Amino acid sequence: MKIAIDAMGGDFAPENIVKGVNLAKKELSDVTFQLYGDGAKIRQFLDDETAIEIIETTEVIDFHDDPVAAIKSKKDSSLVRAVTAVKKREADAVLSAGSTGALLTAGLMLVKRIKQVSRPALMSTLPTADGRGFDMLDLGANTENTAHHLVDFAILGSYYAENVRGIEKPRVALISNGSEESKGSPTVKEAHEILSAMTEINFIGNIESRDLLSGGADVVVTDGFTGNAILKAIEGTATVLMKEIKSAIMAGSVTTKIGGVLIKKPLSGLKDLMSTDGAGGAAFVGLKAPVVKAHGNSSELAIASALKQIHKMLESDVSGKLVKHFENMDK
Amino acid sequence: MKIAIDAMGGDFAPENIVKGVNLAKKELSDVTFQLYGDGAKIRQFLDDETAIEIIETTEVIDFHDDPVAAIKSKKDSSLVRAVTAVKKREADAVLSAGSTGALLTAGLMLVKRIKQVSRPALMSTLPTADGRGFDMLDLGANTENTAHHLVDFAILGSYYAENVRGIEKPRVALISNGSEESKGSPTVKEAHEILSAMTEINFIGNIESRDLLSGGADVVVTDGFTGNAILKAIEGTATVLMKEIKSAIMAGSVTTKIGGVLIKKPLSGLKDLMSTDGAGGAAFVGLKAPVVKAHGNSSELAIASALKQIHKMLESDVSGKLVKHFENMDK
Repeated sequence: MKIAIDAMGGDFAPENIVKGVNLAKKELSDVTFQLYGDGAKIRQFLDDETAIEIIETTEVIDFHDDPVAAIKSKKDSSLVRAVTAVKKREADAVLSAGSTGALLTAGLMLVKRIKQVSRPALMSTLPTADGRGFDMLDLGANTENTAHHLVDFAILGSYYAENVRGIEKPRVALISNGSEESKGSPTVKEAHEILSAMTEINFIGNIESRDLLSGGADVVVTDGFTGNAILKAIEGTATVLMKEIKSAIMAGSVTTKIGGVLIKKPLSGLKDLMSTDGAGGAAFVGLKAPVVKAHGNSSELAIASALKQIHKMLESDVSGKLVKHFENMDK
Repeated sequence: MKIAIDAMGGDFAPENIVKGVNLAKKELSDVTFQLYGDGAKIRQFLDDETAIEIIETTEVIDFHDDPVAAIKSKKDSSLVRAVTAVKKREADAVLSAGSTGALLTAGLMLVKRIKQVSRPALMSTLPTADGRGFDMLDLGANTENTAHHLVDFAILGSYYAENVRGIEKPRVALISNGSEESKGSPTVKEAHEILSAMTEINFIGNIESRDLLSGGADVVVTDGFTGNAILKAIEGTATVLMKEIKSAIMAGSVTTKIGGVLIKKPLSGLKDLMSTDGAGGAAFVGLKAPVVKAHGNSSELAIASALKQIHKMLESDVSGKLVKHFENMDK
């Protein structure tokens, strides 16, 4: 299989991207890595060129560019060229740590939606206390969604959790302001009703966002505006709390500081829990092939983990299965 | 001033409610506390009866009751009688730790909306790392809101922060999926445009939910569905992280455990940061008089703090000022 990689996208490109490829290559022997970007710069960081194709591109889309305009004007950017490779079937999937908006736009325009999925969604695997994790979508590809979009998200997420994360009959839940089925906006209530009648997914009802990190569901479905707000609330709370713990220890007595040194190890374990290094990227689901966005400040470990995630998506053919699922619904 | 108190509502009623009154009484010398409920049970916990009125009621609304039905059928419940006292001007404000739905319904039906405020909202003061805190609304009184509702929330929150929390020109922000003004759902964009043109509040634009606990704004406005999801995501993340820290320390080596003992003090300081004891209750704003909901499991400290909050609301006449503000808009 071939994975197209935008080697120039992200805060630490091409270094972390290429180093991530070096790492992933050791484990993924059946993958060809296509690196789109400045060949000379890419080669600086590349261990060797086995299983590597370097495709020279001259432009880079950055975070200041308007996504839609950039896709059209920067045709020779590493991002557009990498996504185009999937469209032309020169690659099976694409990874970028560049502009989210540009990747979503290019994905929609070039890789295209699965027929019947009117709104693709951004999905990430987030950590839970028990290590199992959960997939949440939409994290912000949309700012408004109908009940039917939410139902599509439930199917997309369920297939992903089952095929890529290997979870049998993933528990799918809908974010609401209460766990009772009577709770929710009109949109959520309508989605709840449709999902309750579906036999192909394991819908367990509503979930409140306070039960996410404790592992209340395997797939969590919500509209893009709410999902984005929840994700960022989790991030912000974890960041502030870890910082406060640190500064409370540093501001304490000598005894407290010694205590701080002694618990350093379990605290760094917690950092791992909240870290994105092992979590892969955010998958843009609902398209005909895997389009994955890594965080802009991804480490080489994060890039390697996103590549392993894409490998699982390709190996399980989750996108192909979804195309078939929605085709069948059409009949 | 007179505060009507539902002495029977909440998980630890009447004990924690009455003990909270005992505490608040020491500081609030100009308040008469009206306790609605079972007089014999109330007297068990009451220090003395100065500045206290006990009003016998025979029924209690519990969490299983349907809110709307309960308001109509349990006319002699401590909750309905306490809210009715405000309607009849026998009290100036009401506090309950009972059913949120029942209190909201009774507040709407009996205390009534301020003219021109079509949707009252639930608002709480949440903690920030710098101790300043922020007010967020709506936390779930509504499941859907229009741009005009959001604009009303901004005014309600701004008046509250200024009058009750004493913050000059409170910075009011709108939750969105990005800080740029181009970001947001159509509803959020419309609200952003209206708020930007208003001179009476200090609107600072959009805020992402990751910047709340670090103190990005004094008043945070969003629809009830999103606000509820953000609040519960913050709660859930803080709970899971504190639990994980504890169990990481307990599962560690002897050295780690000793470290855990040594940092116990700063960690309990953090618990205070996240605790609701000092934060007051959730105010149901947009009504003609203060209606405040304390958490169902409120400690006596939390009840006392909610009573002090109500005292500030009455002393500053924030509800009266809001009635006037919206009357003037009407002209």
